[in-house]
Amino acid sequence: MTVSAFDHPLLSGLLGDEEIGHYFSVETDISTMLAFEAALAKAEAAEGLIPHEAAHHIGDACKTFRPDFLELRVATARDGVVVADLVKQLRKVVGDPYSEFVHLGATSQDVIDTSLMVRLKAVAFLLSNRLSDLSTAFDNLDRSFGHNPLMGRTRMQAAIKITVSDRICAWRAPIDCYRDRLTEQRLPLQFGGAAGTLDRLDDRADAIRATLAREIGLSDIPQWQSQRAVIADYAGLLSLISGSLGKFGQDVALLAQAGDEIELSGGGGSSAMAHKQNPVAAEALVALARFNATLLSGCHQSLVHEQERSGAAWMLEWLILPQMVMASAASLRLGLQLAGTIERIGAKP
Amino acid sequence: MTVSAFDHPLLSGLLGDEEIGHYFSVETDISTMLAFEAALAKAEAAEGLIPHEAAHHIGDACKTFRPDFLELRVATARDGVVVADLVKQLRKVVGDPYSEFVHLGATSQDVIDTSLMVRLKAVAFLLSNRLSDLSTAFDNLDRSFGHNPLMGRTRMQAAIKITVSDRICAWRAPIDCYRDRLTEQRLPLQFGGAAGTLDRLDDRADAIRATLAREIGLSDIPQWQSQRAVIADYAGLLSLISGSLGKFGQDVALLAQAGDEIELSGGGGSSAMAHKQNPVAAEALVALARFNATLLSGCHQSLVHEQERSGAAWMLEWLILPQMVMASAASLRLGLQLAGTIERIGAKP
Amino acid sequence: MTVSAFDHPLLSGLLGDEEIGHYFSVETDISTMLAFEAALAKAEAAEGLIPHEAAHHIGDACKTFRPDFLELRVATARDGVVVADLVKQLRKVVGDPYSEFVHLGATSQDVIDTSLMVRLKAVAFLLSNRLSDLSTAFDNLDRSFGHNPLMGRTRMQAAIKITVSDRICAWRAPIDCYRDRLTEQRLPLQFGGAAGTLDRLDDRADAIRATLAREIGLSDIPQWQSQRAVIADYAGLLSLISGSLGKFGQDVALLAQAGDEIELSGGGGSSAMAHKQNPVAAEALVALARFNATLLSGCHQSLVHEQERSGAAWMLEWLILPQMVMASAASLRLGLQLAGTIERIGAKP
Amino acid sequence: MTVSAFDHPLLSGLLGDEEIGHYFSVETDISTMLAFEAALAKAEAAEGLIPHEAAHHIGDACKTFRPDFLELRVATARDGVVVADLVKQLRKVVGDPYSEFVHLGATSQDVIDTSLMVRLKAVAFLLSNRLSDLSTAFDNLDRSFGHNPLMGRTRMQAAIKITVSDRICAWRAPIDCYRDRLTEQRLPLQFGGAAGTLDRLDDRADAIRATLAREIGLSDIPQWQSQRAVIADYAGLLSLISGSLGKFGQDVALLAQAGDEIELSGGGGSSAMAHKQNPVAAEALVALARFNATLLSGCHQSLVHEQERSGAAWMLEWLILPQMVMASAASLRLGLQLAGTIERIGAKP
Repeated sequence: MTVSAFDHPLLSGLLGDEEIGHYFSVETDISTMLAFEAALAKAEAAEGLIPHEAAHHIGDACKTFRPDFLELRVATARDGVVVADLVKQLRKVVGDPYSEFVHLGATSQDVIDTSLMVRLKAVAFLLSNRLSDLSTAFDNLDRSFGHNPLMGRTRMQAAIKITVSDRICAWRAPIDCYRDRLTEQRLPLQFGGAAGTLDRLDDRADAIRATLAREIGLSDIPQWQSQRAVIADYAGLLSLISGSLGKFGQDVALLAQAGDEIELSGGGGSSAMAHKQNPVAAEALVALARFNATLLSGCHQSLVHEQERSGAAWMLEWLILPQMVMASAASLRLGLQLAGTIERIGAKP
Repeated sequence: MTVSAFDHPLLSGLLGDEEIGHYFSVETDISTMLAFEAALAKAEAAEGLIPHEAAHHIGDACKTFRPDFLELRVATARDGVVVADLVKQLRKVVGDPYSEFVHLGATSQDVIDTSLMVRLKAVAFLLSNRLSDLSTAFDNLDRSFGHNPLMGRTRMQAAIKITVSDRICAWRAPIDCYRDRLTEQRLPLQFGGAAGTLDRLDDRADAIRATLAREIGLSDIPQWQSQRAVIADYAGLLSLISGSLGKFGQDVALLAQAGDEIELSGGGGSSAMAHKQNPVAAEALVALARFNATLLSGCHQSLVHEQERSGAAWMLEWLILPQMVMASAASLRLGLQLAGTIERIGAKP
Repeated sequence: MTVSAFDHPLLSGLLGDEEIGHYFSVETDISTMLAFEAALAKAEAAEGLIPHEAAHHIGDACKTFRPDFLELRVATARDGVVVADLVKQLRKVVGDPYSEFVHLGATSQDVIDTSLMVRLKAVAFLLSNRLSDLSTAFDNLDRSFGHNPLMGRTRMQAAIKITVSDRICAWRAPIDCYRDRLTEQRLPLQFGGAAGTLDRLDDRADAIRATLAREIGLSDIPQWQSQRAVIADYAGLLSLISGSLGKFGQDVALLAQAGDEIELSGGGGSSAMAHKQNPVAAEALVALARFNATLLSGCHQSLVHEQERSGAAWMLEWLILPQMVMASAASLRLGLQLAGTIERIGAKP
Repeated sequence: MTVSAFDHPLLSGLLGDEEIGHYFSVETDISTMLAFEAALAKAEAAEGLIPHEAAHHIGDACKTFRPDFLELRVATARDGVVVADLVKQLRKVVGDPYSEFVHLGATSQDVIDTSLMVRLKAVAFLLSNRLSDLSTAFDNLDRSFGHNPLMGRTRMQAAIKITVSDRICAWRAPIDCYRDRLTEQRLPLQFGGAAGTLDRLDDRADAIRATLAREIGLSDIPQWQSQRAVIADYAGLLSLISGSLGKFGQDVALLAQAGDEIELSGGGGSSAMAHKQNPVAAEALVALARFNATLLSGCHQSLVHEQERSGAAWMLEWLILPQMVMASAASLRLGLQLAGTIERIGAKP
């Protein structure tokens, strides 16, 4: 089934993104969850909570274990989360006498949120690279066409002459800023146990959390299971990125409509009119910007996350955030592609 | 890749819906598009615009033709729509001398929007059946427990005693109304040609459109390619359905928290706390309600659909509407399931 | 203070609407609430629940009573609703022995929601009239310029020639439909008492409700205090109206940018460029469309209205719905104004 | 007229905020605009673009000038912005020979956006103070009741015992973080002239902009008139604040419903049930959180800000941002009030 345009066998040609999509595959998610379980055991062994052999056994098992996905799916339908059954399966593979040390003191949310953070961290660097590439593409356009005159337009009316460089500057300025923000984020470990108090780790809780954070490559802060600004902030940045690219797309579409101030190569064909060259990538940038602007609202609704864990608010994030990542990823890919199709911008000499 | 919870190998156990998902598979979409092309040829032959043999050949080809999906995907990336290439492939299969009569006078949007309408019509009847089932489930609960006393609660505070029947009445009332609205919708054919004027059909345009609508089982209205209330209305109804079920879910979750006025069977297990029975379906209903409420905004943004066809506004619909359908479908499935797990409601005698 | 553009001393010149705003003044709201209390007493007397003299006294008091607004404001801060204190003040004015018959069996929500429905009904007719006027304005444009050629544009590109009449048809079609929907709505009375069961009206509850509905001019349906589709539907229609006008505005702004296919009189002046004629009304139509599309989401979030009355979900409606009404009202006013400034549309002969 | 709950004569008792509302009064807006004009003249004189006497005259005039508000309102209806007419009036007051030096090289957007930034900077400090007060209030609660046991609740079910301190920690953690973010924002001057190029300031443009920024107390960055991340970021932070307070409100409302783990003083009265104490402030926090989460979407829609200035995208911000500020302000006021009404939290000893 293929309700998402990002996964759709045909539409994904336009809107999908395999590189980033990889991080939302079930395989990557599960293997990151298993990396959490291995790192947890290692951290708990380092602090003397569980035997070192247990940690080794668990670590080895996590490397090779392939869960029964059908069983996981059935369990997710029942439990609302995949972790309880994943841990059950993992414990079976680890076997006695070490199985009891698997997942010790952790809860589903620790595994799911941390897996997400690890993957969002990797995604942030990839998106940041794309922002760099886009910035370079704008630089190149600027070098080639920056001196060309362009009609400055305000409120949809011709205003005064500017240069192509002025317009490109407005496209590039936020891009550079977002790149820094993506890489300067310090995405945190989530580790709180049953109700956020790490109740089963006694006075070693802080040390284990710090070690676990280091192991898994995330920043060490107290649990944030019911305080979701981390998610809302990441989502906000995603929407800023797609929003600024939406402005670029809208500007190109408007230039392409007028026709005299831009030349694009390779526009989309029409089933009814062979002569047309549709600025498909430019339109897609606008659509993706509005899509993320729409979804962001749901991430902020999720801030009303009741008590120690809200299944409802949490599921709402699951329904939204991966798509926002994909929309921004597609947006950057298409933005880069669109910049590459600009054969001339500014008035003809 | 699996960014959508509705398609996700694991989460779809909870949030997916195979019956409704079928209508958003690429196979169903393409076969419905081909049904459009066949019906169009038939209608144009009936009105004398193209030879009857052409219509027969095209109709036969549409029945057996299996497009090259890889090529379609590449073309969609370029054209922004699948239809130009699909028609090209179909014309090749139909061959001379009839290939020129394929898709005559139609445009991509006619094919895509009409395919959507045909599928949304089928979906409407399935959702309507589920609403009936849910209504019956509420009736059964009412028969079993309606006379039990229940604490009426206003503004999160105990107010006065009501009966379980009073509460169930609030859950059921909108359900019956939505069922009628779903089935009474008269979803329309979209048929306008290149720019909405059916310019290639001369004075036979209205007759062909009427015949085509009959053939394809949709209501006959002039093209609505740039006037998208049809989409926004359908989306609004989807969100009303999931919203009212969200109220049901929230009420059950609140009852389950207090614990004394409801007994549920089969709640979800926890990875950290074996004693818990989480009201997973109830929480999912709230999440799906808030998800659709969020997405609806994007469908209404799409009403700003410029000129004769906006690629941007149209793509935004593609990104949103299928997911709203799935959310309401999952909502009804889970609502029915949740009603079935209520073993007692109201105070213990 | 003036945080709302609709009320702002300066911006309301552009975005406000005095005719419709009247219905959201505190005076109109309170007087409609008092009309409810008078009608309630009359209905209860008609069914023998309270003495006829009581109803007369209450009815007379409601006609002349001017509440202490400062006290109401303080009480609203405390109670979250104005009604408890309004009823207290009204009872004092009615005096013994009839004061106990004021508001008998009703609750705050009955008064507030019914006052809203009465006012939304009046608003619906006014908006419907404006839709008629706009339809007429489009007819006039069609008569004057309908035969002019216009470049049909799809996906922001020149497609094929159409006529001005074709474009106007896309603007007018939804308008006529919305007019019918506005006037065909049967807005209901809200009357449920403390927890929706009219518990203090014994077996006369249905008869009193029917009489009250007739008195107040609304349709008679059982209480819908926790089932808010009535609100969400009205809001949806408001957003459809502003959305379709947003399309009109966007189209005019795009025409005005190209410049050769439209002539507008009286555009907005610029502080920096004296030569410009900004299509201010066209831009405002787009802004208002996107504003309502944004807000609609919140009305649907309010469908998750827990138990017998949710203060949170209800307040969210208060924050949103009046503004959506104003946005649609301003949209219609500006749409009509914009249509009136079109001095030519279509290519110059 | 009073469509906004924040301005409403009665509802503002609950939802309004006079201290912050002051910054959105027309008087404050206009006087800040005049401060911009005075600072601009001063900066232009400092860089030798205009005579010092002109700057003095303009500065003096800006101090005492009271514009004709009625004329401004009419002009705003025509121009879509207030500035053209405000400058015209100001020039008249300044008189010859200096009137030509008023607003030299600036445009409406410079004045409007900069006035907004100046006011948002002041608001940020006030909100930041409230966050400090709230943090202190949580500390006090923690000192008084932190050791009390509290049932930890996950997925709306009793999980394990935690302490009141654990719960308060989840409320306070984001508050401290938001305070720093509010005060560390470096809100920028907007200064670009007609189309963003400061075309009338020759090679003194950068120096004038730097001086102007210093004068007006904002950070100096190149114009951002069509790149609106500044607005979207501020709005995002506002929604984070109200969202985290929404979680606090929801938690308190759920505690108040169960009734045994919290005692609140002074809840709201009911018109139908004298015994009830409604947790009005807690409900309002949830409503305000959902309101801002809804509106944020519109601010991100505004990122699609076409060309050198989009009237539509800009007006959408005007419709939204002031209300988001008020919602967060009210949220903080009510959060503080709610914390003050907690007379006991946690299980009775």
